[in-house]
Amino acid sequence: MESWLPGSSGPAEAGPRLRGLRGADLAASACLLSGAGAEAGCSAPAVAAVLPAGGSGERMGVPTPKQFCPILERPLISYTLQALERVSWIKDIVVAVTGENMEAMKCIIQRYQHKGISLVESGVTRHRSIFNGLKALVEDQPNRRLSKPEVVIIHDAVRPFVEEDVLLKVVTAAKEHGAAGAIRPLVSTVISPSADGCLDHSLERVRHRASEMPQAFLFDVIYEAYQQCSDYDLEFGTECLHLALKYCHIKAKLIEGSPDLWKVTYKRDLYAAESIIKERISQQICVVMDTKEDEEHVGHRLEEMLKNELNHVKVTSGRDLQQIILEECYNFVCVNVMTSDFEETQKLLNMLEESNLSILYPVVVISVQFLDYESVPFGQKMENLMRIREFAKEVKKTNILLYGLLVYYPQVKTQVKHKNDLCSVWRRCCD
Amino acid sequence: MESWLPGSSGPAEAGPRLRGLRGADLAASACLLSGAGAEAGCSAPAVAAVLPAGGSGERMGVPTPKQFCPILERPLISYTLQALERVSWIKDIVVAVTGENMEAMKCIIQRYQHKGISLVESGVTRHRSIFNGLKALVEDQPNRRLSKPEVVIIHDAVRPFVEEDVLLKVVTAAKEHGAAGAIRPLVSTVISPSADGCLDHSLERVRHRASEMPQAFLFDVIYEAYQQCSDYDLEFGTECLHLALKYCHIKAKLIEGSPDLWKVTYKRDLYAAESIIKERISQQICVVMDTKEDEEHVGHRLEEMLKNELNHVKVTSGRDLQQIILEECYNFVCVNVMTSDFEETQKLLNMLEESNLSILYPVVVISVQFLDYESVPFGQKMENLMRIREFAKEVKKTNILLYGLLVYYPQVKTQVKHKNDLCSVWRRCCD
Repeated sequence: MESWLPGSSGPAEAGPRLRGLRGADLAASACLLSGAGAEAGCSAPAVAAVLPAGGSGERMGVPTPKQFCPILERPLISYTLQALERVSWIKDIVVAVTGENMEAMKCIIQRYQHKGISLVESGVTRHRSIFNGLKALVEDQPNRRLSKPEVVIIHDAVRPFVEEDVLLKVVTAAKEHGAAGAIRPLVSTVISPSADGCLDHSLERVRHRASEMPQAFLFDVIYEAYQQCSDYDLEFGTECLHLALKYCHIKAKLIEGSPDLWKVTYKRDLYAAESIIKERISQQICVVMDTKEDEEHVGHRLEEMLKNELNHVKVTSGRDLQQIILEECYNFVCVNVMTSDFEETQKLLNMLEESNLSILYPVVVISVQFLDYESVPFGQKMENLMRIREFAKEVKKTNILLYGLLVYYPQVKTQVKHKNDLCSVWRRCCD
Repeated sequence: MESWLPGSSGPAEAGPRLRGLRGADLAASACLLSGAGAEAGCSAPAVAAVLPAGGSGERMGVPTPKQFCPILERPLISYTLQALERVSWIKDIVVAVTGENMEAMKCIIQRYQHKGISLVESGVTRHRSIFNGLKALVEDQPNRRLSKPEVVIIHDAVRPFVEEDVLLKVVTAAKEHGAAGAIRPLVSTVISPSADGCLDHSLERVRHRASEMPQAFLFDVIYEAYQQCSDYDLEFGTECLHLALKYCHIKAKLIEGSPDLWKVTYKRDLYAAESIIKERISQQICVVMDTKEDEEHVGHRLEEMLKNELNHVKVTSGRDLQQIILEECYNFVCVNVMTSDFEETQKLLNMLEESNLSILYPVVVISVQFLDYESVPFGQKMENLMRIREFAKEVKKTNILLYGLLVYYPQVKTQVKHKNDLCSVWRRCCD
């Protein structure tokens, strides 16, 4: 096994700043997880996750294995890792990749600052890869940082939209039943062909389900199953729940999952994933303004307008910016009324740079200056705008896209017109 | 049954100009279809199609039934109808829609000029809707324009990317075997739950397939099956192949289909469909120029550059424009060197308007003028550009998006720069 932590040789860190998010909720989840929580002062069971990522992605019809295909320039597997590492009660994540892709995987971990990830070499089949991952969690090694968990989650590298909610459900059910897995209704009827390529029989759709991921197991149950299972199972099997049933007589609890759990399999699934991510990050916007009366007025007019277009619009005077960044807002409008500096914008840019938010996706900041052109010389205003161009060049290096917008303030008519312009600038930024 | 033809009370027309496309290929297909083709002077069997479109789309999580959800502003079902009506040997298409959606469906047929479509009222289940469609093809009515086909295709309104190739395969197999249907490998393992929500057993993935659409049947076989089948089948069944097997002892031939046959079921599938369509229509471009030496030079430089970005780049002097439009190219660049008129552009715009191509998607035309600014007064050039703005306003009404681009010609450096600009204009048009 190859254990690897970017920029750290010690024990797993708690994760970068961003991952501290929703701490209170997660503590509550961890309590729920522990059957003896009340008595034992809320001690959660040890949970680890194993991700088989050794597939070749031949169904995708592209040379890159699908888990490494880029979505908005970031590899698919990085989204899945992010989804898992945001869950504070998952202590270790073991990823099984081919020797060939080991270096690429290390680069991804480094680039996107994933924490608490261990890499093992995958096997030639999915089951063999999972088995390798499980072995890494249990085998004795010198200086080992992994420890045998009570419950292990098995998830696919190509299901990036897994939510904490369903992870909690399968882990809780696995504690009770020994095994649990997410299911979905069948979209198509399933049939069984005869040897001559004709219909032998069809299955009643309502009596069957698609077995999806994540699944969770008491570690001892699934490890025992893998140790006992036949070479045929390891070569041709596809279902971990089946192994738990066949070798340990554990009937897995089935948990209804959301449609977003689907497996990215074909090229069209990459398109779908990209659109889902774009929608998520473009539907939330934060309008930053200071508390001056004029600015509040303008800010709230903007808020009204943006609410017609976007799902989540927040207006802040800047005090809770840190929290808003932690909640992964990727779009900001800084409103500056009657001021000729970019103090607020500069403060926001500094916070964003410190947060590492833009490592995952580009962050868009629009700095708007509402100007009373009678009281301030035009030349000075233009100078400011030129300054923002320089800023923009600088922060682009850290994946922050800064735009400047100059609006003449006292003319009500023009003001409205420019608000619409802002909206169209905004729309272009989202494209 | 409600039979309805937009703008025509007579027999089905051959379809608008665009649908004459690939006539020679289709004649060959029709020959293949007819077992007695060689002897009988290539007489194809009568083929009709039935589309159940009465679903509510509850899985989509949106109020609009999924077959009416817009993709690039056009309802999904219109894409499916286009895919079927392009196949010359499908004589009739019967669509089953709810009474509630009947008017909306008529509007879609009118708006997108679909031909040879008959509407029937859907039943409360998929099987009942299909049965209604079949009845419409066989029942005696005064002034009826539908006739009983030899083979009937059953397809879903929400599978827009069906190709002639797979339709031909299922129809040919249905002629031989009585029934045939497209299948795909399973993406997830299928399991059977027990009554208490636990795993009862899982199915071996390699021994099963997903039954997809299109399917085809000898009309008498499937009609007989529907007439005989139980109310339970009509209420809870999902599989036409199963009915043919159960009631007529016909073992359907299974045909391996392409991934694009998938059923648009969830919101993510709409995203995927949109991206597939965008990719298709934005990957083909035609550069129009006249035969003057300069123009050829510029045109071919542009061709080279575009070939790095797009799959299909054609350069034409305008002679075969009609054919290129018939092949559904949606993107044109008109190159004008040292001329101050838009004759070529105007000719292209006229052809496009006549073709009705832009009814289906917007057509993009970029008119580029390479100018020797020393020999022609600048004012005159600007006037031309203003003229193109007027043109643009006019043709936008017919869904043609016209852009003008002015490039100073003799300065080699500037020329290259502007070519890159053209490319970026182009990219923005594709967004």
